[in-house]
Amino acid sequence: MDNFDVRHNIETESIHRIADCFLRHPLQVNGVLEADAEIIRLPGENESYLVVKTDGIHEEIKEQLYSDPYMIGWMAVTAPISDIAAVGAIPTGILLSVILPKHENSLWLDSFIKGVNAACEHYNVFVLGGDTNYDSFFSVNTSVVASINQQNPRLRSNIKSGDYLYATATLGVGNAFAYSRFFDPSFAINYKPLARLNESEFIVEYATSCIDTSDGFFPALAVLSEINQVGFDIENSLKNILSVDALQIVEIANIPDWFLLAGPHGEYELLFNIPEAKYLSFQQHCLEIDFHPVYLGRATDEYQLKFTTGTSPVQCAPAQIPNLFYDADGNVQRYFELLMQQHYKWIK
Amino acid sequence: MDNFDVRHNIETESIHRIADCFLRHPLQVNGVLEADAEIIRLPGENESYLVVKTDGIHEEIKEQLYSDPYMIGWMAVTAPISDIAAVGAIPTGILLSVILPKHENSLWLDSFIKGVNAACEHYNVFVLGGDTNYDSFFSVNTSVVASINQQNPRLRSNIKSGDYLYATATLGVGNAFAYSRFFDPSFAINYKPLARLNESEFIVEYATSCIDTSDGFFPALAVLSEINQVGFDIENSLKNILSVDALQIVEIANIPDWFLLAGPHGEYELLFNIPEAKYLSFQQHCLEIDFHPVYLGRATDEYQLKFTTGTSPVQCAPAQIPNLFYDADGNVQRYFELLMQQHYKWIK
Repeated sequence: MDNFDVRHNIETESIHRIADCFLRHPLQVNGVLEADAEIIRLPGENESYLVVKTDGIHEEIKEQLYSDPYMIGWMAVTAPISDIAAVGAIPTGILLSVILPKHENSLWLDSFIKGVNAACEHYNVFVLGGDTNYDSFFSVNTSVVASINQQNPRLRSNIKSGDYLYATATLGVGNAFAYSRFFDPSFAINYKPLARLNESEFIVEYATSCIDTSDGFFPALAVLSEINQVGFDIENSLKNILSVDALQIVEIANIPDWFLLAGPHGEYELLFNIPEAKYLSFQQHCLEIDFHPVYLGRATDEYQLKFTTGTSPVQCAPAQIPNLFYDADGNVQRYFELLMQQHYKWIK
Repeated sequence: MDNFDVRHNIETESIHRIADCFLRHPLQVNGVLEADAEIIRLPGENESYLVVKTDGIHEEIKEQLYSDPYMIGWMAVTAPISDIAAVGAIPTGILLSVILPKHENSLWLDSFIKGVNAACEHYNVFVLGGDTNYDSFFSVNTSVVASINQQNPRLRSNIKSGDYLYATATLGVGNAFAYSRFFDPSFAINYKPLARLNESEFIVEYATSCIDTSDGFFPALAVLSEINQVGFDIENSLKNILSVDALQIVEIANIPDWFLLAGPHGEYELLFNIPEAKYLSFQQHCLEIDFHPVYLGRATDEYQLKFTTGTSPVQCAPAQIPNLFYDADGNVQRYFELLMQQHYKWIK
């Protein structure tokens, strides 16, 4: 009966274990895990909100998933700005806190700074300040401050059964990149995610809920399932959902398609719902502005995830796929084995 | 001629080397190093400012200056809130980003969380959100978001020659604590700094400049000297400036008094100026509310630091004392030797 695994989500449980220990701000709009960023209503003003988010890039560097300093700088800005995009806010600036190797290589640091500056320019944000500590390794933490004016923040909640689910673009490049780094460097994967600030603005009048895929597609779905107590029926073929880079790995390395949507290294696209009543006007507006979001499937009453891998239909508990990574305790070889075991159970 | 060492400040140069690489926000009020926190004018409103600050506690834990998890939690909140107090802002909340040992000791984590919560309650702030990474050690980074309404932010600049200089309380407990940790654990030093939010509010109508002593007294003076292009004549006896804990170490361990004001581990008091024109009204108001700030000395045209150790007058470049710590490359034994060498040069 493991297809109907009803275990809780190990990742979200672990977040609750720490986050639930703190009192919440009386004007904070979102509960723990209920939004990609933290949203505080500003007193005395109508529909104005302060939005903040902090995000550390540490394990990615330690595990050598990231080694290019320019890319680390780019990601240090892009990752938290993507969360700001998910809630529909406009970023003001960032604070950068770094741990630097004591006698740092200045070329390395210059390249990191170039990556930060390129991303800041792209998103029209500024480095407001920072802090530096020294050790033998590099680590970076970014906090973003942002605002929402004259509109409602967009949480992860507010999805109803029957809603249509979309992504801002095809998915899987994050895990394709991780595959190339950990398993087969012969794949040259172009990984340079863009926080979807423009798309965020476009979907304001249609979507009532949003999450970014920073932790991968199936992990994001599991969070949406938990928060909204719905399931998802991924009606579209995974081949249509996967990016060119991800499909290349599926086809050449003969990897099951769903693996590229399972791993915790995402692509920073936005997943959002379109309620049935807005489906037609959303479609029409997309055509008008030549925006091509990727249709994924629909929210369901049944608390299950359904999709098709190859020709095999799969149905499982929403948290089952993301939990495999935690079962592997962060060991990527072991994780791959667990994915394979799961795959053979499903297709047998 | 080493008493007139005119070397630049190694610490501030190193901050400029990174911070000057970034474009600044067009509405940011403070230049690099010009304030304890980052201050952004809010558009469309009069005299309203967004204030943010990020601060990592990493070296203190790595070097085992801090080992008590409750204290680390307390400091993770107090350190950046102290910067918020320095600029005269009111904190809203914090973001906590932690690196945790992978299979953490839950008692340790509980105690850290208790320290965070105790400090949040004391300052009436809330944990708005956070992020967790895993490694083999513990590290914490805190970002604070705050605001200033209907008044001017207080920078480190705006000190003029002749201004009186005060501290919110006696100084030296930070270095006394470090001495007890690194050199003589028989001293029981009660180190539990308080961010001076109330005092910050009181001095609003008098002080035009402020810095906290998070990095120690002489390092703070060196920054004020550099920013304002003034010197300081510390007229008061160091015995009157030092806290009871610090004096205890001076007397029992026979350590030169100025060492306890030199080290980079501070006590999070506020240093602030009182312009001559406001001196009398400030004195009177302090008496009325029974507030006893510690008089330190006066700002001078001459770009020099003057003070008296024992009975020996000392005159040196403002950055000379803080630079000794960097000359020692973070080795506390070597640092102590450099302090001693400097002391004998001065008193011979």
